[in-house]
Amino acid sequence: MSFQRVAIIGLGLLGGSIGLAVQANLPELQLIGYDADPAVRKRAKERGLAHEIAETAAGAVQGADLVILCVPVGAMATAAREFADVLSPDAVVSDVGSSKQTVIADLRAALPGAAIIPAHPVAGTEHSGPDAGFATLFQHRWCIITPPEGSDQAKVEQLDRFWATLGATVEVMDPQHHDQVLAVTSHIPHLIAYTIVGTASDLEEVKRSEVMKYSAGGFRDFTRIAASDPTMWRDVFLNNREAVLEMLDLFLTDLAHMREAIRASDGETLFDLFTKGRAIRRGIIEMGQDDARPDFGRKDH
Amino acid sequence: MSFQRVAIIGLGLLGGSIGLAVQANLPELQLIGYDADPAVRKRAKERGLAHEIAETAAGAVQGADLVILCVPVGAMATAAREFADVLSPDAVVSDVGSSKQTVIADLRAALPGAAIIPAHPVAGTEHSGPDAGFATLFQHRWCIITPPEGSDQAKVEQLDRFWATLGATVEVMDPQHHDQVLAVTSHIPHLIAYTIVGTASDLEEVKRSEVMKYSAGGFRDFTRIAASDPTMWRDVFLNNREAVLEMLDLFLTDLAHMREAIRASDGETLFDLFTKGRAIRRGIIEMGQDDARPDFGRKDH
Repeated sequence: MSFQRVAIIGLGLLGGSIGLAVQANLPELQLIGYDADPAVRKRAKERGLAHEIAETAAGAVQGADLVILCVPVGAMATAAREFADVLSPDAVVSDVGSSKQTVIADLRAALPGAAIIPAHPVAGTEHSGPDAGFATLFQHRWCIITPPEGSDQAKVEQLDRFWATLGATVEVMDPQHHDQVLAVTSHIPHLIAYTIVGTASDLEEVKRSEVMKYSAGGFRDFTRIAASDPTMWRDVFLNNREAVLEMLDLFLTDLAHMREAIRASDGETLFDLFTKGRAIRRGIIEMGQDDARPDFGRKDH
Repeated sequence: MSFQRVAIIGLGLLGGSIGLAVQANLPELQLIGYDADPAVRKRAKERGLAHEIAETAAGAVQGADLVILCVPVGAMATAAREFADVLSPDAVVSDVGSSKQTVIADLRAALPGAAIIPAHPVAGTEHSGPDAGFATLFQHRWCIITPPEGSDQAKVEQLDRFWATLGATVEVMDPQHHDQVLAVTSHIPHLIAYTIVGTASDLEEVKRSEVMKYSAGGFRDFTRIAASDPTMWRDVFLNNREAVLEMLDLFLTDLAHMREAIRASDGETLFDLFTKGRAIRRGIIEMGQDDARPDFGRKDH
């Protein structure tokens, strides 16, 4: 059995990409979208991100058997309360948030008794808003489904098939473990990137124009992820605080160790750490999660 | 007046790319290469990285009016001593190192009286060795020339034209300022990337395979620069210690501030910082130093 009618709540990069991917891969599925921002709804209509754009969340969710919340993790509860009264008791409520434990708690409180099966497609770009989505965003990317204990197995499989049809490789994971894994692979890298971009833009000795000009030496790779949506990322850090702080403290300890090695001109310690990077990089390329071409095929100009 | 005979000492990513770029853009120039590693010399011959590969550094430098040292910054002095006796008194001695103050001091000590005019092409990839170079590496990238005080202006201009012919945009900068600018735009980003990759590969709760699998959430961008040549980077940190430590301490202060904001659930501070990234990113793209396409045009698989 597959879903008949899908409601997408929030039509930014992720919601828009789901809409376009559904139309490309599941043309028979009824697709209705909603966004709290009227300007986004207007743009979503123009781009055809869903078959229909509703004027209220309740209007979108009425009759849907799959509801996907594509809003920042801090806005899940508010968004869910808007359609709680019309939600079909058989519907699956899912999301695309980057942290899972607080989302489960928030949705359970807002939608008592609903079948909440969160998901996290590990895919994105630094662009956001209704113009950012594209149909192939999920191709060959992972989608992690984190069913709370006691979830209906048939519904988990239904959601699994849905994401697989959009091109993702699906993995099922415990929500708590998800939050730890993503703290390392996504949240800490974003925090570090945002911070170094902030540090670099406030220097006295080095001008901001110089930082931008000579960014090809490494800095520009950090600016890409530091250009990601600020609201979404604020909410991630507020909602995955414990795992982020734990990983951040491990990183800070390691960085203090490297600082001491530089201070003491300890070349051996530096060399040993610098050698580790290559093996991990090779693994990522072998797993098809990155591109080995120099500069990922960036243009020459 | 332009150079007649160029010697490249060190035939890795940078030396090999200069060799290929010279052949593409300055076909009349005599080009001789040398590398201390016999296996690299053999491979350089096969790839045709220079017109001729010498068996000794002195053999390569004999008769050259431009010598470019393309070895790790910690190996400059040793490499220079090998050809000190045969260096023509009129020759320009340059390099491609990522830090400049210690290189100037080392080359002055090894080559008393020589015309030392260091340069730093701000271009590279995470690959190294004689197979890594390509002729277009310097196209639309900056090359910073850092002449020590009292340099012969005609020779500085000669070197400037050489790099411009290879496709680079040349800037002249004070060596000390260069080292500060690059500490921010290149050295600290590399140190952070190396460190987080190390932290992530030693975790107890999260497996290394999970880190690689879910790396598309941000982590993979760090692994690219953390796959850079370990010897080269060890030497950079040992040779630009002061500027690196100064910038690192500014970053650590800012990161402690962010840590505290997360701990205290201070969303406003997080949001304010996260908003800064977009302006810098826009500037970098406008300056042609990066590619705005989602994922820089990475392949879909």
